[in-house]
Amino acid sequence: MSSQYQAPLSDMQFQLFDVWQVQQHWQQVPALAEQLEPETAQAILQEAAKICEQQIAPQSQLADQTGVRLEQGEVSTPEHYKACYQAWCEGGWAGFSGDPEYGGMGMPKVLSMMLDEMMCSADIAFSLYPGLTAGACVTLQQYASDEVKALYLPKLYNGEWSATMCLTESHAGSDLGLMRTKAEPQADGSYHISGSKIFITAGEHDLTDNIIHLVLAKLPDAPAGSRGISLFIVPKFIPDAAGQPGTRNALHCGSIEHKMGIHGSATCVMNFDGAVGYLLGDPHKGLAAMFTMMNYERLAMGSQGLGAAERAWQNALAYANDRLQGRISERDANKAEPIIRHPDVQRMLYTIQSLNEAGRSFSTWVALQLDKAKYSDDEQGQQLANLLTPIAKAFMTDLGLECTVQAQQVFGGHGYVKEWGMEQLVRDVRIAQIYEGTNGIQAADFLLRKVAGDKGAVLQQLYREIESWLDTSNVLHQQLASYLLRCQQLTESLLKRGSENKALLADYAYDFMTLNGYLLYGYMWLKQIEALERAEIADETKQQKQKLAHFYFARILPRVETFIAIMQD
Amino acid sequence: MSSQYQAPLSDMQFQLFDVWQVQQHWQQVPALAEQLEPETAQAILQEAAKICEQQIAPQSQLADQTGVRLEQGEVSTPEHYKACYQAWCEGGWAGFSGDPEYGGMGMPKVLSMMLDEMMCSADIAFSLYPGLTAGACVTLQQYASDEVKALYLPKLYNGEWSATMCLTESHAGSDLGLMRTKAEPQADGSYHISGSKIFITAGEHDLTDNIIHLVLAKLPDAPAGSRGISLFIVPKFIPDAAGQPGTRNALHCGSIEHKMGIHGSATCVMNFDGAVGYLLGDPHKGLAAMFTMMNYERLAMGSQGLGAAERAWQNALAYANDRLQGRISERDANKAEPIIRHPDVQRMLYTIQSLNEAGRSFSTWVALQLDKAKYSDDEQGQQLANLLTPIAKAFMTDLGLECTVQAQQVFGGHGYVKEWGMEQLVRDVRIAQIYEGTNGIQAADFLLRKVAGDKGAVLQQLYREIESWLDTSNVLHQQLASYLLRCQQLTESLLKRGSENKALLADYAYDFMTLNGYLLYGYMWLKQIEALERAEIADETKQQKQKLAHFYFARILPRVETFIAIMQD
Repeated sequence: MSSQYQAPLSDMQFQLFDVWQVQQHWQQVPALAEQLEPETAQAILQEAAKICEQQIAPQSQLADQTGVRLEQGEVSTPEHYKACYQAWCEGGWAGFSGDPEYGGMGMPKVLSMMLDEMMCSADIAFSLYPGLTAGACVTLQQYASDEVKALYLPKLYNGEWSATMCLTESHAGSDLGLMRTKAEPQADGSYHISGSKIFITAGEHDLTDNIIHLVLAKLPDAPAGSRGISLFIVPKFIPDAAGQPGTRNALHCGSIEHKMGIHGSATCVMNFDGAVGYLLGDPHKGLAAMFTMMNYERLAMGSQGLGAAERAWQNALAYANDRLQGRISERDANKAEPIIRHPDVQRMLYTIQSLNEAGRSFSTWVALQLDKAKYSDDEQGQQLANLLTPIAKAFMTDLGLECTVQAQQVFGGHGYVKEWGMEQLVRDVRIAQIYEGTNGIQAADFLLRKVAGDKGAVLQQLYREIESWLDTSNVLHQQLASYLLRCQQLTESLLKRGSENKALLADYAYDFMTLNGYLLYGYMWLKQIEALERAEIADETKQQKQKLAHFYFARILPRVETFIAIMQD
Repeated sequence: MSSQYQAPLSDMQFQLFDVWQVQQHWQQVPALAEQLEPETAQAILQEAAKICEQQIAPQSQLADQTGVRLEQGEVSTPEHYKACYQAWCEGGWAGFSGDPEYGGMGMPKVLSMMLDEMMCSADIAFSLYPGLTAGACVTLQQYASDEVKALYLPKLYNGEWSATMCLTESHAGSDLGLMRTKAEPQADGSYHISGSKIFITAGEHDLTDNIIHLVLAKLPDAPAGSRGISLFIVPKFIPDAAGQPGTRNALHCGSIEHKMGIHGSATCVMNFDGAVGYLLGDPHKGLAAMFTMMNYERLAMGSQGLGAAERAWQNALAYANDRLQGRISERDANKAEPIIRHPDVQRMLYTIQSLNEAGRSFSTWVALQLDKAKYSDDEQGQQLANLLTPIAKAFMTDLGLECTVQAQQVFGGHGYVKEWGMEQLVRDVRIAQIYEGTNGIQAADFLLRKVAGDKGAVLQQLYREIESWLDTSNVLHQQLASYLLRCQQLTESLLKRGSENKALLADYAYDFMTLNGYLLYGYMWLKQIEALERAEIADETKQQKQKLAHFYFARILPRVETFIAIMQD
């Protein structure tokens, strides 16, 4: 009766190698071409799947029940997390996408994104411990000196140490310019950091020997607002000459939050009382450094939505096949049929599956753009990644909630009791719409910054590229072409109306972001159908993909109608 | 920092006396005309509001934390529930809509529905204890002999005893025909009931001296399936000659469920081991008797959605006015503005408020039809109530989830921590989409039974009535008229296509139900606007109503576009 999980490895391979043909990009990048072929990647994903399926996922309900405890400043995580974390680190997964010069595996985002999804299916709360570290490493890789990198990165890559991001303060959430944490310069070049940060994921825990906090704070001469924020490395234990955890720093966990979900994750109030810190990057440029990382990691938030929805779907499907209730043909009143035969149950299952598989395609696409930008300095890739990242974060997590709720609904009353694990998926995934920039902030970022920022150039270019790719002899292609045309016109008209009325754009931002999500998921389905020709997969899978594509176009894509109607002039 | 609540008494009065002018119906019913005038009703609502606001609501978070406990067959509810329950009963609220002949207050549904909403805002879990009793009384009133009524009703009306509905078995949820609980006739005319029921709300608890179970079971000669189910009264303590709780009956609570929410409500597995029971109504006709009550009570489920959403909105509004974050005019970078100034936050708050106030209007409308049927034998009222009840249950609870989630989102990270109470509203309201017939079942009931059952006659008649009421010189009226026309055509075409293809109707049932929900909420907004002319309310309130109506038509009603597009031929 507990919640099951099996990594969707076949679909992951289909998305990677058939739909987006990432191997073509790998071949162009010497560093990747040397070590990565589809077969290697497949083996890698299989290994990661094993830990997720066999060790982490089966205990996620236990982690929810146990939760974290704070006693005298020390945070205990669920007992089994230690073994899970050890297994994860021993497999080399902690440094999976890290810089090989410092002991990382240098793996591309298209693969680490799949790992993220599996980890989130297995246990979102657990995934945050290695997840935050991986995020912090991105900033260190980009902004730290060689010396600092050599000191911290190897230990973060092997998981011996972990890391956090300390941004939020109680009165400064989405508006970081208001923060009050101070950094006082010291004679030796270090700083003393004082202030209190809230909502710090993995701020304190018992999985690693040291915790490296990346803390945003203000220097004494800081300009007002968000242009006066600097970034500091503040280790829990200051590394000694040998690079080992030395003196305990003046920081501690003041309390932990009691939350709706992700009970296994420690969400801490962190107090810095003149803690020793080291400037990372340039003074007053901390926010940019932090956002470099956050943008790169926002795709991982989308994977939380997808991961939870995938596990929810698997369990709902199994339950619907198993649960006998009602009958379609009323032959034998005492003999019920599996509820999957009921059209409304099918509708729910298809809704989830069609959104999940489009979502997996979408995040592979975005990850590929991030890889192109990182490994090939591809400017177009970077532009596209910038444009699509807020959709990946917000739209995918909104769907994460919708899909877990739908899957829970398939279980009827059993979905509401803890035993089956369905309600936990709903509670756990809910946070993904909130943290790392609320989805409202993402929507504003998408329309006001990314789209209006270049007068719609990148988005309209994307529309045109999709349009020119479409085959107008195909019915589904025609349908998308017609929506594309309407979206092109809408975008144009909206930007015109919004050019002197920023409030109008802010007002429509959420609708516009969501509209584009559904439109692009339509594109994802057509890309998948196209890939079926070259894919070496079972006929049954091909037929299922066709069916899902048609379902998406018939039942989900028309949601676009509402958003167009709302925003039309 | 805890969750607040103030009963929306002004809007309730506006809906009752200005929009639906229920006083006109009361004047036609002698039993109501004698005791009820708008002023009396106002005083009644104020009194109920006091208990909800001052006693129940402030402790709902405590109830969530405490939960219920099962020890040696006895269930303890949260400690403060005893005082709340006593206050509720002392106020006479337990028998509010009960038959005056047996000590009830005989109050109409339009008022008890308002009580339901307030109770659900205050604490859904608590509301279920008196709520189940009120529901069971409806069945007893209609099906029990005078002797049985005289024995049970007075004690249920004064709250001394409570009642349950025992339907579900572990393998028989939505499909009650599969049930296995048996009733063996005894020489004295009673029956011995044996079997196990699950998900029994208030099956065991410490608030009353006795618990009267209404149990569905099969007689030895029962036909197969749902046509062979009978209904029995099975008291926890068998009343003695003096009508006092006597011998302990052979039934007990085997376990309680650990649930996502409504932690203060005891959801019990009830085992009947040859318990003494008394047939209620005719043999094999138990399901019909149970459904009489369920249909009448399904509106109360809608009130759970509305009640939670109302409290969520009130708290989100207060938070949005209080929380300083970001700025619209960038004059002072260190000085933030309340987040309510942000268009996206306004969008969320308006969404919730426009849905809530339309929902309150809608449930008043449905309640009035139930009252017309009950007090005036109005056949049209009954037909309309039958048609609209599944929408009230399913659509209003779906919106309950959407609105509580949106309100939680306004709080950002603070919405996810327990302290503020927002996440509890989401968890608590989620069950309302599941119990008393899942929303999928409601949708099927609406399209397959209610609409297709009379070939669309009542629905199309309703469309025509609304159409003829519309004033085509008004822009909003025009917009609704245009949607109405499209819905008329769609209904016709759908029923035609579905006449030989029941699966097609089952497939579209959910979309069709939701479509009609949005359409009728549009009608509700126009009815409210019309009522503004005769309403004696503040100009500010009138302007706000106008604003909300326009918001609904611009931003919510277009959801109809999607459903029409999906179901179009």
